Amino acid sequence: MKVAIVGATGAVGSTMIQSVLELGLQPTQWHLLASARSAGTSLEVAGQTLQVTDIEQFNFEGVELALFAGGEIASERFVPRARETGAVCIDNSASFRMDPKVPLVVPEVNPEALRGHQGIIANPNCSTIQMVVALKPFVDLGLERVCVSTYQSVSGTGKDAIEELAQQVRAWAADEAEPEPRVYPAPIAFNLIPQIASFGPDGFTGEERKMMEETRKILELPQLRITATCVRVPVFYAHSESLHLELSHPCSPEEARQRLAAAPGVVVMADGPQPTPLQAAHQDQVLVGRIRRDPSCDNGLQLWVVADNLRKGAASNAVQIACKMKEMGLL
Amino acid sequence: MKVAIVGATGAVGSTMIQSVLELGLQPTQWHLLASARSAGTSLEVAGQTLQVTDIEQFNFEGVELALFAGGEIASERFVPRARETGAVCIDNSASFRMDPKVPLVVPEVNPEALRGHQGIIANPNCSTIQMVVALKPFVDLGLERVCVSTYQSVSGTGKDAIEELAQQVRAWAADEAEPEPRVYPAPIAFNLIPQIASFGPDGFTGEERKMMEETRKILELPQLRITATCVRVPVFYAHSESLHLELSHPCSPEEARQRLAAAPGVVVMADGPQPTPLQAAHQDQVLVGRIRRDPSCDNGLQLWVVADNLRKGAASNAVQIACKMKEMGLL
Repeated sequence: MKVAIVGATGAVGSTMIQSVLELGLQPTQWHLLASARSAGTSLEVAGQTLQVTDIEQFNFEGVELALFAGGEIASERFVPRARETGAVCIDNSASFRMDPKVPLVVPEVNPEALRGHQGIIANPNCSTIQMVVALKPFVDLGLERVCVSTYQSVSGTGKDAIEELAQQVRAWAADEAEPEPRVYPAPIAFNLIPQIASFGPDGFTGEERKMMEETRKILELPQLRITATCVRVPVFYAHSESLHLELSHPCSPEEARQRLAAAPGVVVMADGPQPTPLQAAHQDQVLVGRIRRDPSCDNGLQLWVVADNLRKGAASNAVQIACKMKEMGLL
Repeated sequence: MKVAIVGATGAVGSTMIQSVLELGLQPTQWHLLASARSAGTSLEVAGQTLQVTDIEQFNFEGVELALFAGGEIASERFVPRARETGAVCIDNSASFRMDPKVPLVVPEVNPEALRGHQGIIANPNCSTIQMVVALKPFVDLGLERVCVSTYQSVSGTGKDAIEELAQQVRAWAADEAEPEPRVYPAPIAFNLIPQIASFGPDGFTGEERKMMEETRKILELPQLRITATCVRVPVFYAHSESLHLELSHPCSPEEARQRLAAAPGVVVMADGPQPTPLQAAHQDQVLVGRIRRDPSCDNGLQLWVVADNLRKGAASNAVQIACKMKEMGLL
């Protein structure tokens, strides 16, 4: 299979190369694509040195699978081109996610949505993916309401943000003046930023809106009552979520543990140390702990959900979609 | 007024000295007390060098106000002694907080609880204080339910934890092996720890239980439905909270903003940058932002609440209690 990766030099794109290698897609040919700015650099992939090609100069003819991680502008421009040449496009940007003709898929949650795809599959937002993996085992108990507060790592913003946190922390350790923030509106070292993307008129940010809208679409619960607060924290990798769910049927913490333990893609950490971002980083499972009854409502549960936002929250989920499509004969 | 500060060399105790100086208590005599381990060290206070006395050797006779920040063991042992000699004790430990005979006070919220005190006033938990300051303006609208997720700084644990985060970050910056965690069960640098104090059989931690029980007592709402998730974050100073409240009467975000802006001790940050721990640190106000309707329930509001946990969350609140008692003729 000929595979193209768009945005191959970015935080998600470079993780996609890793995920393709680890998850067994076995491409016969790689095309690593990026903007003119990054073209010409070379990347080591499974022992080969591959050149990064300027996407403007690239012909998608013959590519069977195109994984897009180059941001919205690149996706809006090049997904239609790649699709015209017959490539199946799995797109990590937000551009097509809410399009009713485009499946928005987490393979453990709604693989059936892949059937009848029209050449574009949208990969959900990082914080949405790990949340729906943890919510799915409760849908048949009548999921009525979800409230989530997130603790999101800087890698969700990209390589510049990883570097910004690193620089601020190095300056602090060297007792030097803190460099001016460039990526975030305030310093992120030893700080929190309670804003991810811009504010809408209702006071919710773009990231919060994505969590709310995408969750309804993926779980096929258009009326789901859901709200989110998204916060950036000085962590490099893995997002964490404090999650409240309200069900129409009772579910004891013990039953919740069993349902989660039986769910694909989930590791339950019930006893002993509870999940941390350092534990969740650099692997594909969604770690769930702090499983307990919410005493402030009927049939409420609380969970603490942690996953690597670049892996399960982006790159690996996209590659898992491709694997699932092969398995279903759709690719 | 003769003032004793117990635990004067700790994170809260040393901040208490600062708060006493800034908030105008004007002691005629200071007694800085600590365990034998710290006794003999000297501290600069308003230009004087004061010796720290071993509390075991200290006679509370003549002390009018004793501020306790030496932890539960010291409070349980020495609060009764200080009180016997006629000192009014304001205690930052959890030891007496839930005692029905002991007022648990945030001066902006329930000053009337100070009347009829019996020599001990309890200072609430840091994360509780800032939350009740933000909740109080909504109590007359029928506060039915509160859900909070916290983002708590390491200074809440004490000086050792501040040093642990600093050491881990310095080791990271120097590319050295990370020192073994001693204070926390896992590294805190670039990480989160979803556990503050130990777990009870219901899966809630001590810190979460404090937030739930103390809030009910302070607001005099014994039936309040409330739940909490408390998380330690790699921030030095100031706790942040993602707060959901459900009211029995409607309250628009605009009205919520007005109520909060009129509330003592609150600074509303409605437009522009939203509150961060770096902004909240080293001052006494509770910063409230992200004021919006919770679309997932009737009459719901969401807030983002940030305050310095050593100042308003501990030292300054204790000193403000003393100031309020003077004003009310109770001290």
